[in-house]
Amino acid sequence: MIRIRLAGPDDADAIWPLLRTVFRAGDTYAVDPAISRDRAIDYWVDQARAAYVAEDDGEIVGTYYIKTNQQGGGAHVCNCGYIVSPAARGRGIAALLCTHSQEQAQGLGYLAMQFNLVLASNAGAVRLWHRLGFATIGTIPDAFAHPTLGMVDAYVMHKHLDEIRDHMESV
Amino acid sequence: MIRIRLAGPDDADAIWPLLRTVFRAGDTYAVDPAISRDRAIDYWVDQARAAYVAEDDGEIVGTYYIKTNQQGGGAHVCNCGYIVSPAARGRGIAALLCTHSQEQAQGLGYLAMQFNLVLASNAGAVRLWHRLGFATIGTIPDAFAHPTLGMVDAYVMHKHLDEIRDHMESV
Repeated sequence: MIRIRLAGPDDADAIWPLLRTVFRAGDTYAVDPAISRDRAIDYWVDQARAAYVAEDDGEIVGTYYIKTNQQGGGAHVCNCGYIVSPAARGRGIAALLCTHSQEQAQGLGYLAMQFNLVLASNAGAVRLWHRLGFATIGTIPDAFAHPTLGMVDAYVMHKHLDEIRDHMESV
Repeated sequence: MIRIRLAGPDDADAIWPLLRTVFRAGDTYAVDPAISRDRAIDYWVDQARAAYVAEDDGEIVGTYYIKTNQQGGGAHVCNCGYIVSPAARGRGIAALLCTHSQEQAQGLGYLAMQFNLVLASNAGAVRLWHRLGFATIGTIPDAFAHPTLGMVDAYVMHKHLDEIRDHMESV
């Protein structure tokens, strides 16, 4: 049974191994692969508008954050990042996290969600975001130096959250 | 005679009025219109990889910054922002700044330049970036709450800097 809740200060020790695996690999997130634990937690949790963890019978198997993507006139669009532990993949947890994040973001007042850099090589993620209603609104050529594939393109992906709001107001 | 040079700590007092005019207007940059002087200087100068000023006979009439747009595998792409003082507009200074920034960015090792949020309503900027070789690689719908126009789209614009490098190596 997966339960998603806000992350607290005590969760850092469980979040860090998830971040470390993904950041050290350097093949999905635009984060320095050598980032320290403290800077990673700062980036993922402290700098976020909100950070969440997914628990499976008390074990943290995933995490995501919501950030304001741009300030000023752009502050109604949020950005999110998601990580699922290697052992828990293939169970639909990323989709659960993303669906949860859209509801939370809507509750925080955001009108849209934008992913700034989805690597074209991350085909599973691209397919999932499309399935969850995100549109590819741009392609950045040679956006990312992948450790094994060389330069890969990245997509800018976007979803209006109004549909969720309209739906929620009607029920 | 316009001269472009690196900004120093003593330039903050001259840079701030340029930032203040543009940020307070809230119709081009994704910055809180109420931003303080210190936070604006931090955003424009201190957080930049490099910040520059354009002088016209000793008076600062423009400024720009170069930042690394993404970390990790995306760190070869830079982002820039440009401001020209209202009194000095219409003299081609923005084009001078952008051309200068491409050369400086190439010297700093960047392979491409990306603008993340060029408002569709900022037609002069869009036209100028196109003229200087930038491609529109994406359109973010309703990206920006413009103070008089309501929600406006924004473009993601991009230019490979390799052409400059190739050209410089051949001369």
